[in-house]
Amino acid sequence: MESRTHCGLITSELVEQKVLLKGWVQRRRDLGGLIFVDLRDRSGIVQVVFNPDINQGALETAEKLRGEYVVTIEGTVKKRDENTVNPKMKTGEVEVVAERVEILNKSKALPIKIENKTEATEEIRLKYRYLDLRREEMQETMKLRHLISQSFRHYLNHQGFFEMETPMLTKSTPEGARDYLVPSRVHPGDFYALPQSPQLFKQLLMISGYEKYYQITRCFRDEDLRADRQPEFTQLDIETSFMSQEEIMAMTEEMLQSVVKEVKGVDVATPFPRMTYDEAMERYGSDKPDTRFEMELVNVSDVVADSGFKVFKSAVESGGKVSAINVKGQANNFSRKDIDKLTESVSVYGAKGLAWMKVDGNEFSGPIAKFFETDEVQALSEKLNATDQDLLLFVADKANVVADSLGALRLKLGKELGLIDESKLNFLWVTDWPLYEYDEDEGRYHAAHHPFTMPQTQDIDRIDEDPANVKAQAYDVVLNGYELGGGSLRIYQKELQEQMLKTLGFSEEEAEEQFGFLLEALEFGAPPHGGIALGLDRIVMILAGKTNLRDTILFPKTASAADLLTDAPSPVDGNQLDELYLKLQQKSDE
Amino acid sequence: MESRTHCGLITSELVEQKVLLKGWVQRRRDLGGLIFVDLRDRSGIVQVVFNPDINQGALETAEKLRGEYVVTIEGTVKKRDENTVNPKMKTGEVEVVAERVEILNKSKALPIKIENKTEATEEIRLKYRYLDLRREEMQETMKLRHLISQSFRHYLNHQGFFEMETPMLTKSTPEGARDYLVPSRVHPGDFYALPQSPQLFKQLLMISGYEKYYQITRCFRDEDLRADRQPEFTQLDIETSFMSQEEIMAMTEEMLQSVVKEVKGVDVATPFPRMTYDEAMERYGSDKPDTRFEMELVNVSDVVADSGFKVFKSAVESGGKVSAINVKGQANNFSRKDIDKLTESVSVYGAKGLAWMKVDGNEFSGPIAKFFETDEVQALSEKLNATDQDLLLFVADKANVVADSLGALRLKLGKELGLIDESKLNFLWVTDWPLYEYDEDEGRYHAAHHPFTMPQTQDIDRIDEDPANVKAQAYDVVLNGYELGGGSLRIYQKELQEQMLKTLGFSEEEAEEQFGFLLEALEFGAPPHGGIALGLDRIVMILAGKTNLRDTILFPKTASAADLLTDAPSPVDGNQLDELYLKLQQKSDE
Repeated sequence: MESRTHCGLITSELVEQKVLLKGWVQRRRDLGGLIFVDLRDRSGIVQVVFNPDINQGALETAEKLRGEYVVTIEGTVKKRDENTVNPKMKTGEVEVVAERVEILNKSKALPIKIENKTEATEEIRLKYRYLDLRREEMQETMKLRHLISQSFRHYLNHQGFFEMETPMLTKSTPEGARDYLVPSRVHPGDFYALPQSPQLFKQLLMISGYEKYYQITRCFRDEDLRADRQPEFTQLDIETSFMSQEEIMAMTEEMLQSVVKEVKGVDVATPFPRMTYDEAMERYGSDKPDTRFEMELVNVSDVVADSGFKVFKSAVESGGKVSAINVKGQANNFSRKDIDKLTESVSVYGAKGLAWMKVDGNEFSGPIAKFFETDEVQALSEKLNATDQDLLLFVADKANVVADSLGALRLKLGKELGLIDESKLNFLWVTDWPLYEYDEDEGRYHAAHHPFTMPQTQDIDRIDEDPANVKAQAYDVVLNGYELGGGSLRIYQKELQEQMLKTLGFSEEEAEEQFGFLLEALEFGAPPHGGIALGLDRIVMILAGKTNLRDTILFPKTASAADLLTDAPSPVDGNQLDELYLKLQQKSDE
Repeated sequence: MESRTHCGLITSELVEQKVLLKGWVQRRRDLGGLIFVDLRDRSGIVQVVFNPDINQGALETAEKLRGEYVVTIEGTVKKRDENTVNPKMKTGEVEVVAERVEILNKSKALPIKIENKTEATEEIRLKYRYLDLRREEMQETMKLRHLISQSFRHYLNHQGFFEMETPMLTKSTPEGARDYLVPSRVHPGDFYALPQSPQLFKQLLMISGYEKYYQITRCFRDEDLRADRQPEFTQLDIETSFMSQEEIMAMTEEMLQSVVKEVKGVDVATPFPRMTYDEAMERYGSDKPDTRFEMELVNVSDVVADSGFKVFKSAVESGGKVSAINVKGQANNFSRKDIDKLTESVSVYGAKGLAWMKVDGNEFSGPIAKFFETDEVQALSEKLNATDQDLLLFVADKANVVADSLGALRLKLGKELGLIDESKLNFLWVTDWPLYEYDEDEGRYHAAHHPFTMPQTQDIDRIDEDPANVKAQAYDVVLNGYELGGGSLRIYQKELQEQMLKTLGFSEEEAEEQFGFLLEALEFGAPPHGGIALGLDRIVMILAGKTNLRDTILFPKTASAADLLTDAPSPVDGNQLDELYLKLQQKSDE
């Protein structure tokens, strides 16, 4: 095969040079006896002209060219006439006058147009992913993804970290999300699990004395998928020994600052703002606040606890709370019908209602306004910074319902009212997470982060009696309302790890069976250690300005975890199952 | 936690400075009222002295220190007395006079000594892998592995390649090795497969126009394991569009040259020597010749075809061949018993016997010497470059048996006789591979490389009639007798791909069901493309001077694909199986 001499990004420096190009036909136009072909390759697009005076044979071949044909073109770079210069194209000052063209491969008519923005349905885009991936915005995103990965590596390598590969065929543990299982052929009836994260292996590497580990690696969770979840996702996984929480957070900030600078040219200030988990829930109704706009939640329980409005009063009396958001200046833009729709939107979070008042001069109006005395109105006005034409929205309920519903409402209104400055990159730390979370269905505590998270020193004594109020040495980094990643210091003492497993409901036997190797490793000189894991797909999504994780992944799965291109998962031969000592259950077995 | 000020690699520049170190107790010695502790961290080892005149309390704590305790030590760096300087230690000119010591964690007595070379059994090493990984030789190997990976990335990034992530949950295809299967919970009865390689996805990325792809990625094969195989292994996977075989080979050479230079400081000459597959089999009895020593196989069929030795004569007559190796100067060092053992060693390759003669002056001796006329002896001597005291070993059989048995014998003798210069890095290309290989058990052709390999242009017309003699545009890169990796140009025309699948025994329906997405993709402007894949584990093994792949992998599996540390694979709960609509087969079902 002849060698390509240049890529499609032909510039004026090459004028009068012979070039041999290879690429795809983006477009063909026939004009005044000439044929113009836009030739595309990874680097860009250049105009090629076929002229009967130069080579009649080439012109005749060019007549056969259709969109997405693959061609070799030989010719000479020429400056365009001034009146045909195309300032929109990087190569718009030149064109290639073709002396020869060879068709390397043809193309059928395409189910997706190869243009920057597409109107194709996502189903078509996924089925013909290899065409969707030809589009400029996809190519740009995948290039950005590459640059981001290498930029993280660049930073960490310079900090003395080693990238180290942990196993994919690992042991299944019931704690955490659901594992993807891999049946063993050599050990009938036994299964490997695909890793949900390299958590235990990276801790073992700290026990092995590697001190600074990272890995950009695939993780797997067999959960029901939401828009921003994939069954397999990529994690930047970091673990260090002998570093404090402050040191890990400072290093993470510097790393993110350096990556954003390198790939986007944007300066991010450090240190990032911080907020405790409790404060985030109180002020934003979210453990990953989007701080690009205000409209914070305000706890007005103390003001309304004795008010005449029974709903508020009884919510506070029964241990709940009343919070509100102030939708500034929007009183006249929300009809009753609009507010009914908002009410509906919060009902999915368990809110039994959405109370509202509008500010009219110094007065409040609306059906519940009559229940509040002047001093209450004044106190509410102060707390909520309420002025004329504001719309006040209240939820009175258990604390978690108030947070979830008003938090979601805040985001919804922020988006709909255009309050979000999309150019901002608002990083934020959320710290002091609870160590446990109570599972009402199962009537027991789960690990809020994972069972290896170090409790805060002052809370260690309370683990057994008062787990609900034990805080963890854990920290999440949030960007524009997305959780970028989370980390913690880990337990490095065997006794504390045993105690932790016990409070999570593990019997001694279960702890030994599942985590015996970790417990034993902790007895052989385990150093203090901790780390963080960042979701690469999500970082790419935000920095690429996308809102769908699937647009950051080459070959993503659908919401039902299927690959529409290759048709995976799919049935397998009976003898493949026999080799694994497996049978399919009949539907009647379900 | 207080911050570490320095790592253990303390040099003379720090003399008289205060330092705060954290690490492991490598060794404690009590001497003349003082306590000496060798403190180890990832960077190195430094001597710490506890002196009652400096701090009696620290000395008392130091008395409690045992091997592998984790400690914080504060002190001052001092120059050692000239007579106590230890030139074997990088830090041997200094010591840290301790003012304070804190025990961060204790350690039980260890099942493995933390020293450079270990005598522990591999079983113990794998079970306590986190301790085995503390040993210097393992730390050095894992550091080298990191450096090699980054060096490949460095080269490829500079060549304009993008690292791109292909899926792990993919479609199972019966062609090739056995897949690891992953049952789907969402699609009962369906399975994903873990990728044996990203082959089809990287081809799709070329069809997507990315032109230069690479990935350092995990691959999976559920095969019975040999010493140099692992169920999961790491591959440097590369694919390019529009590049010729020569261009891909030249780039691979430059890449390997640059990596070896960067991580080992060794200059490797390019271009690498080349040999066709046929020549490699003929001269080395191997498709991955170790060219660090000679003792080549010599085909003597023409000389012995009419000899009086029936075994040789009939082998040639029945379409086989007779080849020999010359074990220079070793005639007296091999007794009959020794030769019997060699015979035994080749019998596993199907050789029915090993004929031998010794050179005694100008004569041949040994039981079969009498069958050869003087002119035959002379011809053999010339061909085999036989001189006094040489031992000549012959195998007469079908060509593949001759190659396998003499090839293995050559390697065995090369090692045992110390003929191999271990300092050499002998790279070699093996080219012109057969496209197909015949499976005698199944009575059909398999793809020698994989079903997407491009036949050589001059052989395309013979695919249907004479598949055995069709050569592929395929190339393997070999280093010191190991296959580092292999590549090929790929089929990019739908019709040829269909024809290829047909010759491999696929019906039209099967081809469509398994590879329909690829066949369709080839219709939408697929560019000419090709690539190569290199085994990272093996490259690390060779450059680290190891002979066992497991010594290059952090957490390897045993020959029965088990992880002795975590005890994977392991049984799972019945409800996990129920969720996957699976049942275990009883033994009686087998």
